Amino acid sequence: MKALVYTGVKQLDFIDRPDPQSQAGDALIRVEAVGICGSDMHAWAGHDDRRPAPLILGHEAAGTVIDGPMTGQRVTVNPLVTCGACQACTSGRDNLCATRQIISMPPREGAFAELLTMPARNLVAVPDHVSLAAASLAEPLACGWHAVRLAQKALDIPLAAARCLVMGGGAIGLGAALVLRAMGAGQIMVAETSAARRAIVGAQDGITVFDPISDTAPQDVDLVIDGVGFGATRAAGSQALRPGGVFMHIGLGDTAPGLDIRRATLQELTFIGTYTYTAQDFRDTAQAIFEGRLGALDWAEAAPLSDGAQAFRSIADGQVAAPKITLLPQA
Amino acid sequence: MKALVYTGVKQLDFIDRPDPQSQAGDALIRVEAVGICGSDMHAWAGHDDRRPAPLILGHEAAGTVIDGPMTGQRVTVNPLVTCGACQACTSGRDNLCATRQIISMPPREGAFAELLTMPARNLVAVPDHVSLAAASLAEPLACGWHAVRLAQKALDIPLAAARCLVMGGGAIGLGAALVLRAMGAGQIMVAETSAARRAIVGAQDGITVFDPISDTAPQDVDLVIDGVGFGATRAAGSQALRPGGVFMHIGLGDTAPGLDIRRATLQELTFIGTYTYTAQDFRDTAQAIFEGRLGALDWAEAAPLSDGAQAFRSIADGQVAAPKITLLPQA
Repeated sequence: MKALVYTGVKQLDFIDRPDPQSQAGDALIRVEAVGICGSDMHAWAGHDDRRPAPLILGHEAAGTVIDGPMTGQRVTVNPLVTCGACQACTSGRDNLCATRQIISMPPREGAFAELLTMPARNLVAVPDHVSLAAASLAEPLACGWHAVRLAQKALDIPLAAARCLVMGGGAIGLGAALVLRAMGAGQIMVAETSAARRAIVGAQDGITVFDPISDTAPQDVDLVIDGVGFGATRAAGSQALRPGGVFMHIGLGDTAPGLDIRRATLQELTFIGTYTYTAQDFRDTAQAIFEGRLGALDWAEAAPLSDGAQAFRSIADGQVAAPKITLLPQA
Repeated sequence: MKALVYTGVKQLDFIDRPDPQSQAGDALIRVEAVGICGSDMHAWAGHDDRRPAPLILGHEAAGTVIDGPMTGQRVTVNPLVTCGACQACTSGRDNLCATRQIISMPPREGAFAELLTMPARNLVAVPDHVSLAAASLAEPLACGWHAVRLAQKALDIPLAAARCLVMGGGAIGLGAALVLRAMGAGQIMVAETSAARRAIVGAQDGITVFDPISDTAPQDVDLVIDGVGFGATRAAGSQALRPGGVFMHIGLGDTAPGLDIRRATLQELTFIGTYTYTAQDFRDTAQAIFEGRLGALDWAEAAPLSDGAQAFRSIADGQVAAPKITLLPQA
């Protein structure tokens, strides 16, 4: 098969690789849409020692099953493979499985390729009226779904009464904002530094957007969701919260100081790190996409997988306004 | 009245001050026991700009009402004065009252004095069989009570199944450990660097203690309660937690980096800052003291208020093993 292989720092080669080998219970999938995630960018830049070259990156995939269980079915792929047996898995926190694997991290290759194998239990069937490009957004949107679900438990008011601030208008931030809207949040504000991206975020009904560099930031918000995860966003978020507020931290931008520990203590802020989603969150998110509850999802840009190396460079150079680039292996 | 007045950095003078003036609804209290808190030490060292000299410090008080409501009653004092009307106060989070005041911080003088005035609603009657020195421990113990109550909400397992690690064996840490024991926690371990203090903590039934410098730290704990609040304790605590674990942060030691943000995100740690206690927490803690559920409380050391300056110096010099020094204004 053809694959976009990460072969070294900032180096991607569109080359032939052996077809993946199915194990018992695996489906063989012809990948038709696969998004570029911030964590792919991070690996490409050589900043993720969990993802050493050579490696096929990519974990936001949708396609059609061509062999094994569900053959002929259009599917979106939950890339997180868990054991199903440990304490985390059996208590509804399977995203914290002690032996969890994710495609695009050894021992599993990723989905920037024509073919992918996955356990059938990781697949969700996609109805005909939904494009596979939209279906591939289930993965990033599920991160927001999971964060909002945990936030609802931690908040001391109903989400319907909550003023919510999302840091970043990329796929994670915009996705979290769309989930907040779907779940009926009281007010949704997104901080985004790129004017072009603000235009996209601001075009979503019920979501307001502002420039955290030049605009006055909201104060006394009930909930912050950080889809970026840099010291600067943790600092701004922990300043914006009202006493007793909740900070959901999805982004893995850096580990710099930022969270205001003294304020967190004196004003009882709750800071919750969130990682991916449970299998149920993934299925619920996919269903919300299928029912149109997360909007038109028309803000992703498509490019052929063969042009993937250029897409990575464009994102790194800040030339991409779209919150997501979806690569098309069959284009 | 005589008072121990903070008059400048590391300067305390035992001098005459005007008697406090009662407002409507206030009780005038003859202070008989008042503990030295870490925050008093912090102010004394000149590190708390919320507490400028000259000022009477001290907020862990018990005594006898000699005028106003409850005259003749032995009482322990909730030092936190809240409005009772704001959103925080009316939603059971009165410790986050927007206009909260605490004695020992302007505009309210503290309790290192012979006399104190307080709204009667802040007083809890102390039964005859409980000493006022023990009753004055309601304040630091209520901090642990509040933290454990919030932790129970945040944990994904019952407290009875939880392995708990407490950072620090001072009054806050030991107090949190005693509250954990009273509430039936599964296992209670305290990290304490002072050998003399380890001996005191280790003498409490059901609580184990270790030296975080030389001993192997526990791993995969469900709950950390940080009664110290330094970068080093945040770092150690966030390493010790299992995925999905909960970190309750009471201490205000410093604001240095320490919390492992990347691990918190990838392993979904919950970090909750806690400040003091609600009025209900304070009453519940006092009741637990009265019923003996927090143990014999025989680990505090007493000294006359007139010797308070020396007590501060001894604590600062690391010469005090006891988790608490209680000053006696009437001695």
